Amino acid sequence: MTSTPLSRSEAKDLTRRKLIRAALAILDEEGEAGLSTVKVARAAGIAQSSFYVHFKDMQELLRVLAEEGGERLRSSMREARRRARESPGDLGLHRETFRIPLESICRHPELLRIQIRARHDPSSSLRDFASETAAAYREHHAADLAALGYTADNERDRRRLDMIADGINAATNALAMGHLEGRYPDLDEAADILTALSRGALRLLRSTSGATRPGDEPPARP
Amino acid sequence: MTSTPLSRSEAKDLTRRKLIRAALAILDEEGEAGLSTVKVARAAGIAQSSFYVHFKDMQELLRVLAEEGGERLRSSMREARRRARESPGDLGLHRETFRIPLESICRHPELLRIQIRARHDPSSSLRDFASETAAAYREHHAADLAALGYTADNERDRRRLDMIADGINAATNALAMGHLEGRYPDLDEAADILTALSRGALRLLRSTSGATRPGDEPPARP
Repeated sequence: MTSTPLSRSEAKDLTRRKLIRAALAILDEEGEAGLSTVKVARAAGIAQSSFYVHFKDMQELLRVLAEEGGERLRSSMREARRRARESPGDLGLHRETFRIPLESICRHPELLRIQIRARHDPSSSLRDFASETAAAYREHHAADLAALGYTADNERDRRRLDMIADGINAATNALAMGHLEGRYPDLDEAADILTALSRGALRLLRSTSGATRPGDEPPARP
Repeated sequence: MTSTPLSRSEAKDLTRRKLIRAALAILDEEGEAGLSTVKVARAAGIAQSSFYVHFKDMQELLRVLAEEGGERLRSSMREARRRARESPGDLGLHRETFRIPLESICRHPELLRIQIRARHDPSSSLRDFASETAAAYREHHAADLAALGYTADNERDRRRLDMIADGINAATNALAMGHLEGRYPDLDEAADILTALSRGALRLLRSTSGATRPGDEPPARP
Protein backbone atom coordinates (compact mmCIF):
# COMPACT_ATOMS: atom_id res chain seq x y z
CA MET A 1 0.00 0.00 0.00
CA THR A 2 1.25 3.47 -0.79
CA SER A 3 1.26 5.85 2.10
CA THR A 4 -1.11 8.44 0.77
CA PRO A 5 -2.12 11.22 3.14
CA LEU A 6 -5.41 10.80 4.97
CA SER A 7 -8.48 12.03 3.15
CA ARG A 8 -10.52 14.74 4.82
CA SER A 9 -13.13 12.28 6.05
CA GLU A 10 -10.48 9.81 7.26
CA ALA A 11 -8.79 12.57 9.23
CA LYS A 12 -12.10 13.60 10.73
CA ASP A 13 -12.86 10.02 11.70
CA LEU A 14 -9.43 9.66 13.28
CA THR A 15 -9.95 12.76 15.43
CA ARG A 16 -13.35 11.50 16.45
CA ARG A 17 -11.85 8.21 17.58
CA LYS A 18 -9.11 10.07 19.47
CA LEU A 19 -11.77 12.04 21.34
CA ILE A 20 -13.65 8.87 22.26
CA ARG A 21 -10.47 7.17 23.47
CA ALA A 22 -9.49 10.26 25.45
CA ALA A 23 -12.90 10.43 27.11
CA LEU A 24 -12.69 6.77 28.02
CA ALA A 25 -9.23 7.22 29.56
CA ILE A 26 -10.43 10.18 31.64
CA LEU A 27 -13.53 8.25 32.74
CA ASP A 28 -11.27 5.45 33.86
CA GLU A 29 -8.86 7.66 35.76
CA GLU A 30 -11.04 10.36 37.22
CA GLY A 31 -14.63 9.25 36.77
CA GLU A 32 -17.26 11.47 35.28
CA ALA A 33 -16.38 14.38 37.52
CA GLY A 34 -13.16 14.79 35.52
CA LEU A 35 -14.94 14.81 32.20
CA SER A 36 -15.01 18.18 30.42
CA THR A 37 -14.73 19.14 26.77
CA VAL A 38 -11.57 21.10 27.60
CA LYS A 39 -9.86 18.09 29.13
CA VAL A 40 -11.01 15.63 26.51
CA ALA A 41 -9.95 17.91 23.67
CA ARG A 42 -6.57 18.54 25.28
CA ALA A 43 -5.98 14.81 25.82
CA ALA A 44 -6.89 14.17 22.18
CA GLY A 45 -4.50 16.89 21.06
CA ILE A 46 -7.03 19.21 19.45
CA ALA A 47 -8.42 22.66 20.22
CA GLN A 48 -11.44 22.73 22.50
CA SER A 49 -13.54 24.48 19.85
CA SER A 50 -12.90 21.57 17.50
CA PHE A 51 -14.63 19.24 19.95
CA TYR A 52 -17.94 20.57 18.70
CA VAL A 53 -17.13 19.70 15.10
CA HIS A 54 -17.39 16.09 16.17
CA PHE A 55 -19.95 16.03 18.98
CA LYS A 56 -22.81 18.31 19.93
CA ASP A 57 -21.80 18.01 23.58
CA MET A 58 -20.25 15.64 26.09
CA GLN A 59 -23.53 13.74 26.40
CA GLU A 60 -23.41 12.91 22.71
CA LEU A 61 -19.86 11.67 22.98
CA LEU A 62 -20.86 9.46 25.91
CA ARG A 63 -23.83 8.16 23.96
CA VAL A 64 -21.66 7.22 20.97
CA LEU A 65 -19.14 5.65 23.29
CA ALA A 66 -21.79 3.59 25.07
CA GLU A 67 -23.46 2.65 21.80
CA GLU A 68 -20.30 1.31 20.22
CA GLY A 69 -19.22 -0.53 23.36
CA GLY A 70 -22.74 -1.88 23.84
CA GLU A 71 -22.96 -3.28 20.33
CA ARG A 72 -19.64 -5.03 20.65
CA LEU A 73 -20.58 -6.46 24.02
CA ARG A 74 -24.01 -7.64 22.93
CA SER A 75 -22.55 -9.40 19.94
CA SER A 76 -19.90 -11.20 21.99
CA MET A 77 -22.57 -12.22 24.51
CA ARG A 78 -24.71 -13.65 21.73
CA GLU A 79 -21.74 -15.49 20.29
CA ALA A 80 -20.96 -16.98 23.73
CA ARG A 81 -24.58 -18.06 24.17
CA ARG A 82 -24.52 -19.66 20.74
CA ARG A 83 -21.42 -21.65 21.70
CA ALA A 84 -22.99 -22.68 25.01
CA ARG A 85 -26.13 -23.75 23.17
CA GLU A 86 -24.14 -25.99 20.86
CA SER A 87 -22.39 -27.78 23.75
CA PRO A 88 -25.10 -27.83 26.40
CA GLY A 89 -23.13 -30.08 28.74
CA ASP A 90 -20.15 -27.71 28.98
CA LEU A 91 -20.53 -25.71 32.17
CA GLY A 92 -17.45 -23.64 31.35
CA LEU A 93 -19.08 -22.34 28.19
CA HIS A 94 -22.24 -21.55 30.12
CA ARG A 95 -20.30 -19.65 32.76
CA GLU A 96 -18.54 -17.76 29.97
CA THR A 97 -21.85 -16.24 28.83
CA PHE A 98 -21.91 -14.44 32.18
CA ARG A 99 -18.20 -13.80 32.59
CA ILE A 100 -18.19 -11.72 29.41
CA PRO A 101 -20.67 -9.07 30.58
CA LEU A 102 -19.26 -9.12 34.15
CA GLU A 103 -15.75 -8.39 32.88
CA SER A 104 -16.92 -5.80 30.42
CA ILE A 105 -18.82 -3.88 33.10
CA CYS A 106 -15.85 -4.04 35.45
CA ARG A 107 -13.55 -2.66 32.74
CA HIS A 108 -15.66 0.48 32.29
CA PRO A 109 -18.11 0.73 35.17
CA GLU A 110 -18.74 4.40 34.41
CA LEU A 111 -20.54 3.45 31.23
CA LEU A 112 -23.03 1.28 33.08
CA ARG A 113 -23.43 3.85 35.84
CA ILE A 114 -24.22 6.59 33.34
CA GLN A 115 -26.83 4.40 31.69
CA ILE A 116 -28.45 3.27 34.92
CA ARG A 117 -28.73 6.86 36.14
CA ALA A 118 -30.21 8.03 32.83
CA ARG A 119 -32.69 5.16 32.79
CA HIS A 120 -34.04 6.18 36.19
CA ASP A 121 -34.01 9.93 35.65
CA PRO A 122 -37.17 11.28 34.01
CA SER A 123 -35.38 14.53 33.24
CA SER A 124 -32.31 13.00 31.59
CA SER A 125 -31.71 13.68 27.91
CA LEU A 126 -30.17 10.21 27.68
CA ARG A 127 -33.21 8.45 29.07
CA ASP A 128 -34.60 7.16 25.77
CA PHE A 129 -31.19 5.96 24.75
CA ALA A 130 -30.77 4.14 28.08
CA SER A 131 -34.18 2.49 27.73
CA GLU A 132 -33.38 1.39 24.19
CA THR A 133 -30.07 -0.04 25.34
CA ALA A 134 -31.72 -2.00 28.14
CA ALA A 135 -34.32 -3.23 25.63
CA ALA A 136 -31.59 -4.40 23.25
CA TYR A 137 -29.92 -6.54 25.96
CA ARG A 138 -33.27 -7.91 27.05
CA GLU A 139 -34.50 -8.73 23.55
CA HIS A 140 -31.27 -10.41 22.48
CA HIS A 141 -31.16 -12.46 25.65
CA ALA A 142 -34.84 -13.44 25.35
CA ALA A 143 -34.35 -14.43 21.70
CA ASP A 144 -31.37 -16.59 22.70
CA LEU A 145 -33.46 -18.26 25.39
CA ALA A 146 -36.15 -18.93 22.80
CA ALA A 147 -33.45 -20.42 20.55
CA LEU A 148 -32.67 -22.84 23.39
CA GLY A 149 -35.99 -24.45 22.58
CA TYR A 150 -38.33 -22.63 24.93
CA THR A 151 -41.54 -21.86 23.12
CA ALA A 152 -42.29 -18.21 22.62
CA ASP A 153 -45.37 -18.57 20.50
CA ASN A 154 -47.85 -16.93 22.79
CA GLU A 155 -47.89 -13.65 24.68
CA ARG A 156 -47.41 -15.19 28.09
CA ASP A 157 -44.37 -17.25 27.06
CA ARG A 158 -42.78 -14.27 25.36
CA ARG A 159 -43.37 -12.15 28.43
CA ARG A 160 -41.81 -14.79 30.65
CA LEU A 161 -38.69 -14.97 28.50
CA ASP A 162 -38.50 -11.16 28.62
CA MET A 163 -38.83 -11.17 32.40
CA ILE A 164 -36.14 -13.82 32.84
CA ALA A 165 -33.78 -11.92 30.53
CA ASP A 166 -34.57 -8.65 32.30
CA GLY A 167 -34.05 -10.15 35.75
CA ILE A 168 -30.81 -11.89 34.82
CA ASN A 169 -29.42 -8.75 33.20
CA ALA A 170 -30.23 -6.72 36.30
CA ALA A 171 -28.62 -9.38 38.50
CA THR A 172 -25.52 -9.32 36.28
CA ASN A 173 -25.19 -5.56 36.74
CA ALA A 174 -25.67 -5.90 40.50
CA LEU A 175 -23.00 -8.61 40.87
CA ALA A 176 -20.56 -6.64 38.74
CA MET A 177 -21.10 -3.61 40.99
CA GLY A 178 -20.59 -5.84 44.04
CA HIS A 179 -17.30 -7.05 42.55
CA LEU A 180 -16.18 -3.45 42.04
CA GLU A 181 -17.13 -2.68 45.65
CA GLY A 182 -14.94 -5.56 46.78
CA ARG A 183 -17.73 -7.80 48.03
CA TYR A 184 -17.44 -10.54 45.40
CA PRO A 185 -13.76 -10.90 44.60
CA ASP A 186 -14.17 -13.90 42.30
CA LEU A 187 -16.03 -13.26 39.03
CA ASP A 188 -16.32 -16.99 38.40
CA GLU A 189 -18.33 -17.37 41.60
CA ALA A 190 -20.58 -14.56 40.41
CA ALA A 191 -20.95 -16.21 36.99
CA ASP A 192 -21.94 -19.47 38.71
CA ILE A 193 -24.67 -17.73 40.68
CA LEU A 194 -26.01 -16.12 37.50
CA THR A 195 -25.97 -19.49 35.77
CA ALA A 196 -27.94 -20.97 38.66
CA LEU A 197 -30.49 -18.13 38.68
CA SER A 198 -30.96 -18.53 34.95
CA ARG A 199 -31.38 -22.29 35.09
CA GLY A 200 -33.91 -22.03 37.86
CA ALA A 201 -36.09 -19.76 35.79
CA LEU A 202 -35.73 -21.91 32.69
CA ARG A 203 -36.78 -24.95 34.71
CA LEU A 204 -40.02 -23.12 35.46
CA LEU A 205 -40.65 -22.63 31.74
CA ARG A 206 -39.89 -26.26 31.08
CA SER A 207 -42.34 -27.42 33.70
CA THR A 208 -45.21 -25.11 32.76
CA SER A 209 -45.09 -24.75 28.98
CA GLY A 210 -45.06 -27.20 26.12
CA ALA A 211 -41.36 -26.69 25.54
CA THR A 212 -39.09 -29.68 25.29
CA ARG A 213 -35.40 -29.15 25.44
CA PRO A 214 -33.01 -32.06 25.41
CA GLY A 215 -30.39 -29.91 27.11
CA ASP A 216 -27.84 -30.25 29.85
CA GLU A 217 -30.45 -31.23 32.39
CA PRO A 218 -32.70 -34.05 31.32
CA PRO A 219 -36.37 -33.06 31.24
CA ALA A 220 -38.72 -35.38 33.08
CA ARG A 221 -39.64 -38.23 30.79
CA PRO A 222 -42.51 -40.67 31.15
CA MET B 1 -58.54 10.95 76.82
CA THR B 2 -58.75 14.68 77.45
CA SER B 3 -58.12 16.88 74.46
CA THR B 4 -55.11 18.80 75.70
CA PRO B 5 -53.39 21.06 73.17
CA LEU B 6 -50.38 19.61 71.42
CA SER B 7 -47.06 20.05 73.14
CA ARG B 8 -44.38 21.95 71.28
CA SER B 9 -42.58 18.76 70.24
CA GLU B 10 -45.83 17.06 69.21
CA ALA B 11 -46.71 20.04 67.03
CA LYS B 12 -43.27 19.99 65.48
CA ASP B 13 -43.56 16.31 64.78
CA LEU B 14 -46.98 16.81 63.20
CA THR B 15 -45.63 19.49 60.83
CA ARG B 16 -42.73 17.24 59.95
CA ARG B 17 -45.13 14.45 59.03
CA LYS B 18 -47.23 16.88 57.00
CA LEU B 19 -44.14 17.88 55.02
CA ILE B 20 -43.26 14.25 54.32
CA ARG B 21 -46.80 13.46 53.22
CA ALA B 22 -46.91 16.56 51.02
CA ALA B 23 -43.60 15.64 49.36
CA LEU B 24 -44.85 12.13 48.71
CA ALA B 25 -48.07 13.44 47.13
CA ILE B 26 -46.09 15.77 44.85
CA LEU B 27 -43.68 12.98 43.92
CA ASP B 28 -46.66 10.87 42.99
CA GLU B 29 -48.37 13.53 40.92
CA GLU B 30 -45.53 15.40 39.29
CA GLY B 31 -42.40 13.36 39.80
CA GLU B 32 -39.21 14.85 41.19
CA ALA B 33 -39.29 17.74 38.73
CA GLY B 34 -42.23 19.16 40.67
CA LEU B 35 -40.49 18.90 44.02
CA SER B 36 -39.42 22.21 45.55
CA THR B 37 -39.36 23.44 49.12
CA VAL B 38 -41.85 26.17 48.13
CA LYS B 39 -44.37 23.68 46.81
CA VAL B 40 -43.92 21.17 49.59
CA ALA B 41 -44.26 23.86 52.27
CA ARG B 42 -47.35 25.30 50.61
CA ALA B 43 -48.97 21.86 50.30
CA ALA B 44 -48.23 21.24 53.99
CA GLY B 45 -49.75 24.60 54.89
CA ILE B 46 -46.62 26.21 56.36
CA ALA B 47 -44.33 29.05 55.36
CA GLN B 48 -41.44 28.11 53.11
CA SER B 49 -38.90 29.37 55.63
CA SER B 50 -40.32 26.92 58.19
CA PHE B 51 -39.34 24.05 55.92
CA TYR B 52 -35.77 24.48 57.10
CA VAL B 53 -36.77 24.12 60.75
CA HIS B 54 -37.53 20.50 59.93
CA PHE B 55 -35.14 19.53 57.16
CA LYS B 56 -31.78 20.83 56.07
CA ASP B 57 -32.86 20.58 52.45
CA MET B 58 -35.06 18.59 50.08
CA GLN B 59 -32.45 15.81 49.93
CA GLU B 60 -32.76 15.31 53.68
CA LEU B 61 -36.54 15.11 53.46
CA LEU B 62 -36.23 12.50 50.70
CA ARG B 63 -33.74 10.55 52.77
CA VAL B 64 -36.06 10.46 55.79
CA LEU B 65 -38.96 9.52 53.53
CA ALA B 66 -37.01 6.69 51.93
CA GLU B 67 -35.66 5.53 55.28
CA GLU B 68 -39.06 5.24 56.90
CA GLY B 69 -40.64 3.58 53.88
CA GLY B 70 -37.67 1.24 53.52
CA GLU B 71 -37.79 0.07 57.11
CA ARG B 72 -41.50 -0.70 56.87
CA LEU B 73 -41.02 -2.56 53.60
CA ARG B 74 -38.04 -4.58 54.81
CA SER B 75 -39.92 -5.67 57.89
CA SER B 76 -42.98 -6.80 55.92
CA MET B 77 -40.73 -8.67 53.49
CA ARG B 78 -39.04 -10.47 56.39
CA GLU B 79 -42.39 -11.31 57.92
CA ALA B 80 -43.60 -12.74 54.57
CA ARG B 81 -40.41 -14.80 54.24
CA ARG B 82 -40.91 -16.13 57.77
CA ARG B 83 -44.43 -17.22 56.91
CA ALA B 84 -43.26 -18.85 53.65
CA ARG B 85 -40.52 -20.64 55.61
CA GLU B 86 -43.04 -22.08 58.01
CA SER B 87 -45.24 -23.50 55.22
CA PRO B 88 -42.66 -24.46 52.62
CA GLY B 89 -45.18 -26.21 50.39
CA ASP B 90 -47.40 -23.14 50.00
CA LEU B 91 -46.50 -21.54 46.69
CA GLY B 92 -48.89 -18.64 47.33
CA LEU B 93 -46.93 -17.64 50.42
CA HIS B 94 -43.70 -17.87 48.48
CA ARG B 95 -45.05 -15.68 45.71
CA GLU B 96 -46.20 -13.22 48.36
CA THR B 97 -42.60 -12.60 49.44
CA PHE B 98 -42.05 -11.09 45.98
CA ARG B 99 -45.46 -9.47 45.49
CA ILE B 100 -44.83 -7.29 48.54
CA PRO B 101 -41.72 -5.50 47.22
CA LEU B 102 -43.12 -5.37 43.67
CA GLU B 103 -46.28 -3.63 44.84
CA SER B 104 -44.39 -1.33 47.16
CA ILE B 105 -42.05 -0.18 44.37
CA CYS B 106 -44.98 0.37 42.02
CA ARG B 107 -46.77 2.50 44.61
CA HIS B 108 -43.87 4.94 44.88
CA PRO B 109 -41.47 4.32 42.02
CA GLU B 110 -39.83 7.71 42.56
CA LEU B 111 -38.34 6.48 45.81
CA LEU B 112 -36.57 3.59 44.11
CA ARG B 113 -35.49 5.76 41.20
CA ILE B 114 -33.95 8.31 43.53
CA GLN B 115 -32.03 5.59 45.34
CA ILE B 116 -30.83 3.84 42.19
CA ARG B 117 -29.57 7.12 40.75
CA ALA B 118 -27.78 8.04 43.97
CA ARG B 119 -26.22 4.60 44.23
CA HIS B 120 -24.64 4.98 40.78
CA ASP B 121 -23.63 8.62 41.09
CA PRO B 122 -20.20 9.15 42.67
CA SER B 123 -21.01 12.83 43.21
CA SER B 124 -24.37 12.31 44.92
CA SER B 125 -24.73 13.35 48.56
CA LEU B 126 -27.19 10.48 48.98
CA ARG B 127 -24.76 7.85 47.74
CA ASP B 128 -23.76 6.45 51.13
CA PHE B 129 -27.37 6.30 52.19
CA ALA B 130 -28.30 4.47 48.98
CA SER B 131 -25.48 1.97 49.48
CA GLU B 132 -26.53 1.35 53.06
CA THR B 133 -30.13 0.83 51.98
CA ALA B 134 -29.11 -1.69 49.32
CA ALA B 135 -26.93 -3.42 51.93
CA ALA B 136 -29.86 -3.63 54.36
CA TYR B 137 -32.09 -5.37 51.77
CA ARG B 138 -29.26 -7.70 50.80
CA GLU B 139 -28.29 -8.62 54.34
CA HIS B 140 -31.84 -9.26 55.51
CA HIS B 141 -32.54 -11.38 52.47
CA ALA B 142 -29.29 -13.34 52.86
CA ALA B 143 -30.02 -13.91 56.56
CA ASP B 144 -33.48 -15.22 55.67
CA LEU B 145 -31.97 -17.58 53.10
CA ALA B 146 -29.55 -18.81 55.76
CA ALA B 147 -32.56 -19.34 58.06
CA LEU B 148 -34.00 -21.62 55.37
CA GLY B 149 -31.27 -24.03 56.31
CA TYR B 150 -28.52 -23.11 53.86
CA THR B 151 -25.22 -23.18 55.60
CA ALA B 152 -23.46 -19.88 55.91
CA ASP B 153 -20.59 -20.94 58.08
CA ASN B 154 -17.77 -20.19 55.71
CA GLU B 155 -16.83 -17.17 53.64
CA ARG B 156 -17.76 -18.73 50.33
CA ASP B 157 -21.24 -19.79 51.45
CA ARG B 158 -21.92 -16.39 52.96
CA ARG B 159 -20.80 -14.71 49.77
CA ARG B 160 -23.04 -16.93 47.71
CA LEU B 161 -26.07 -16.09 49.84
CA ASP B 162 -25.19 -12.41 49.47
CA MET B 163 -24.90 -12.74 45.71
CA ILE B 164 -28.22 -14.54 45.42
CA ALA B 165 -29.94 -11.93 47.58
CA ASP B 166 -28.27 -9.13 45.61
CA GLY B 167 -29.21 -10.63 42.26
CA ILE B 168 -32.81 -11.32 43.27
CA ASN B 169 -33.25 -7.83 44.69
CA ALA B 170 -31.93 -6.30 41.46
CA ALA B 171 -34.24 -8.54 39.41
CA THR B 172 -37.18 -7.47 41.61
CA ASN B 173 -36.45 -3.81 40.90
CA ALA B 174 -36.12 -4.51 37.17
CA LEU B 175 -39.44 -6.37 36.96
CA ALA B 176 -41.22 -3.67 38.95
CA MET B 177 -39.87 -1.07 36.51
CA GLY B 178 -41.02 -3.24 33.60
CA HIS B 179 -44.50 -3.39 35.13
CA LEU B 180 -44.55 0.40 35.40
CA GLU B 181 -43.46 0.65 31.77
CA GLY B 182 -46.40 -1.56 30.81
CA ARG B 183 -44.35 -4.56 29.73
CA TYR B 184 -45.37 -6.95 32.49
CA PRO B 185 -49.00 -6.20 33.29
CA ASP B 186 -49.43 -9.06 35.79
CA LEU B 187 -47.43 -8.75 39.02
CA ASP B 188 -48.20 -12.38 39.90
CA GLU B 189 -46.40 -13.50 36.75
CA ALA B 190 -43.45 -11.37 37.77
CA ALA B 191 -43.51 -12.84 41.28
CA ASP B 192 -43.49 -16.35 39.78
CA ILE B 193 -40.41 -15.55 37.73
CA LEU B 194 -38.63 -14.20 40.81
CA THR B 195 -39.60 -17.31 42.76
CA ALA B 196 -38.16 -19.46 39.97
CA LEU B 197 -34.91 -17.45 39.80
CA SER B 198 -34.54 -17.74 43.55
CA ARG B 199 -35.20 -21.48 43.66
CA GLY B 200 -32.73 -22.10 40.88
CA ALA B 201 -29.98 -20.42 42.83
CA LEU B 202 -30.89 -22.17 46.05
CA ARG B 203 -30.76 -25.49 44.25
CA LEU B 204 -27.14 -24.69 43.41
CA LEU B 205 -26.36 -24.18 47.10
CA ARG B 206 -28.10 -27.40 47.98
CA SER B 207 -26.10 -29.36 45.44
CA THR B 208 -22.68 -27.92 46.26
CA SER B 209 -22.64 -27.31 50.00
CA GLY B 210 -23.33 -29.47 52.99
CA ALA B 211 -26.76 -27.93 53.51
CA THR B 212 -29.75 -30.17 53.91
CA ARG B 213 -33.14 -28.64 53.69
CA PRO B 214 -36.25 -30.76 53.85
CA GLY B 215 -38.17 -28.05 52.02
CA ASP B 216 -40.77 -27.82 49.33
CA GLU B 217 -38.58 -29.64 46.85
CA PRO B 218 -37.19 -32.92 48.07
CA PRO B 219 -33.40 -33.02 48.05
CA ALA B 220 -31.85 -35.97 46.25
CA ARG B 221 -31.75 -38.93 48.62
CA PRO B 222 -29.69 -42.06 48.27
